[in-house]
Amino acid sequence: MTKLRPALLALALVLPAAVAADEPQKALTMQDVLDQSTAADWRALDPENTLYLELDSGRVVIELAPDFAPRHVANIRTLVRAGYFDDLSINRSQDNFVVQWGDPDADDKAKVRPLGEADAKLPAEFVRDAEGLAFTRLPDVDGWAPQVGFVQGFPAARDPKANAAWLAHCYGAVGAGRDAAADSSQGNQLYVVTGQSPRQLDRNITTVGRVVQGMEQLSVLARGTGPLGVYEQPGQRTTIRAIRLASQVPEAQRTAIEVLRTDTPAFQALVESRRNRRDGWYVQPAGHIDLCNVPLPARAVPAKG
Amino acid sequence: MTKLRPALLALALVLPAAVAADEPQKALTMQDVLDQSTAADWRALDPENTLYLELDSGRVVIELAPDFAPRHVANIRTLVRAGYFDDLSINRSQDNFVVQWGDPDADDKAKVRPLGEADAKLPAEFVRDAEGLAFTRLPDVDGWAPQVGFVQGFPAARDPKANAAWLAHCYGAVGAGRDAAADSSQGNQLYVVTGQSPRQLDRNITTVGRVVQGMEQLSVLARGTGPLGVYEQPGQRTTIRAIRLASQVPEAQRTAIEVLRTDTPAFQALVESRRNRRDGWYVQPAGHIDLCNVPLPARAVPAKG
Repeated sequence: MTKLRPALLALALVLPAAVAADEPQKALTMQDVLDQSTAADWRALDPENTLYLELDSGRVVIELAPDFAPRHVANIRTLVRAGYFDDLSINRSQDNFVVQWGDPDADDKAKVRPLGEADAKLPAEFVRDAEGLAFTRLPDVDGWAPQVGFVQGFPAARDPKANAAWLAHCYGAVGAGRDAAADSSQGNQLYVVTGQSPRQLDRNITTVGRVVQGMEQLSVLARGTGPLGVYEQPGQRTTIRAIRLASQVPEAQRTAIEVLRTDTPAFQALVESRRNRRDGWYVQPAGHIDLCNVPLPARAVPAKG
Repeated sequence: MTKLRPALLALALVLPAAVAADEPQKALTMQDVLDQSTAADWRALDPENTLYLELDSGRVVIELAPDFAPRHVANIRTLVRAGYFDDLSINRSQDNFVVQWGDPDADDKAKVRPLGEADAKLPAEFVRDAEGLAFTRLPDVDGWAPQVGFVQGFPAARDPKANAAWLAHCYGAVGAGRDAAADSSQGNQLYVVTGQSPRQLDRNITTVGRVVQGMEQLSVLARGTGPLGVYEQPGQRTTIRAIRLASQVPEAQRTAIEVLRTDTPAFQALVESRRNRRDGWYVQPAGHIDLCNVPLPARAVPAKG
């Protein structure tokens, strides 16, 4: 929210000098944390858990969450391997809510695309057991859940009393659209959160993953003018060239990115750098951060030295 | 997040039958609340507190908050009356954060647009006294502030111990960009929140109002590829045709909308309808809502019967 004077832009982005070992109490900014991170603080995406949504505007990279939605992720892999999504479209963009894609002819028995080998019936995967799940807890209060934090890089929530854990609907969360019945999703209609986190959806729908790179291709899509942001004219839809698992794509054509691990001291330091901003510009550190405000950094895989 | 089958779209939007007086305990949906609202539950915007941001794509309607930022609002009125913003541009769109507009040549002494009669120096208006301010409190916990709720239609926060109240950075909040100094904003560079609520900005910058209608024209703007989402090429900027106070515009050309009051039982019922969703589709009501998830309905002024 700085003004746009170049001098101040530069200020906001200046890289701090290396911190000497004898400055133990220096408060770190997020940039400090990233600069000081080591290779072990980052992880590559598993090509079997990575989707490439290919649009005319470029590639959107989605990480799947099989530990939360194993049946849906398996079905999505089956659909993707069969080319199910190729030449389908983005059919809905509702301002401050979601973008959704799939078969625009799902209601037309003559045109609907068959699911092929994929399961037509899946269980609801809204929550899973909390036991046995490594959970990096945020220190701050959350109104939607007893505890919030991160699991394997995903914003998540937990209710120890109920032994339940679930993925949280933060910006970029990807879920499986369903009808009124809880078990009516097949993973063939997917949506992504493009606005203020609609956490009321948590535990009400199966969340299957998260956009790791390329959100700006989805978030800018013109809002549909029909109910729920549905495009009223077929020509307003965005065509999906293809969806592929990274494992299907030759290695040279994969997107070489890695994401910051969320189970490390470096990530804890990043969270603290955002709970209390020390960027100079801030006069009143919040002493708090909401789950969906925590940045989840991704970067190009560094060149081998 | 329903699928897109027309039958279910209809279901999601069906208007409930009128509620008979002998059904006292029926839980209301938001649509019920709006259907049952009376004329007194709505208010017109004050033309002196209403800005029209005119773009090629249409008009964005902004309500100003003089009770929170009197000096900034007065300066903005002065700038607007002098035509300051006309033919300036939107210079920044950062994904999941803000869109910002003003003078793209603010750093070029030869090209910078003078402020004219407007003040070049304003005080920081980050907080105001809480005393004497009617505050409709939300029942739920908030991590960023001791209390949150609504003041005159704006999402707001309050710290009774410090006798401080401030506007909250929810989707659509409009603020005045500043440099490192707290008192370095003049209201000539404005931003609007287009992503997950950046509440860490609360009490760190002067918030001057809120977009009431037309957010979808700002939220879809292509993200800038420079630092902070700044457009790198002048041709990527969106031209501002004009900014006008509604009071400057002939009545026939004004946007005839009204907004739901936030200090009424109807609004309390709306909040409750969203704290615990009863739309049929939901299986797990949240029992909670975050400040920035509460819808603030606007509607066309009904035709006189």
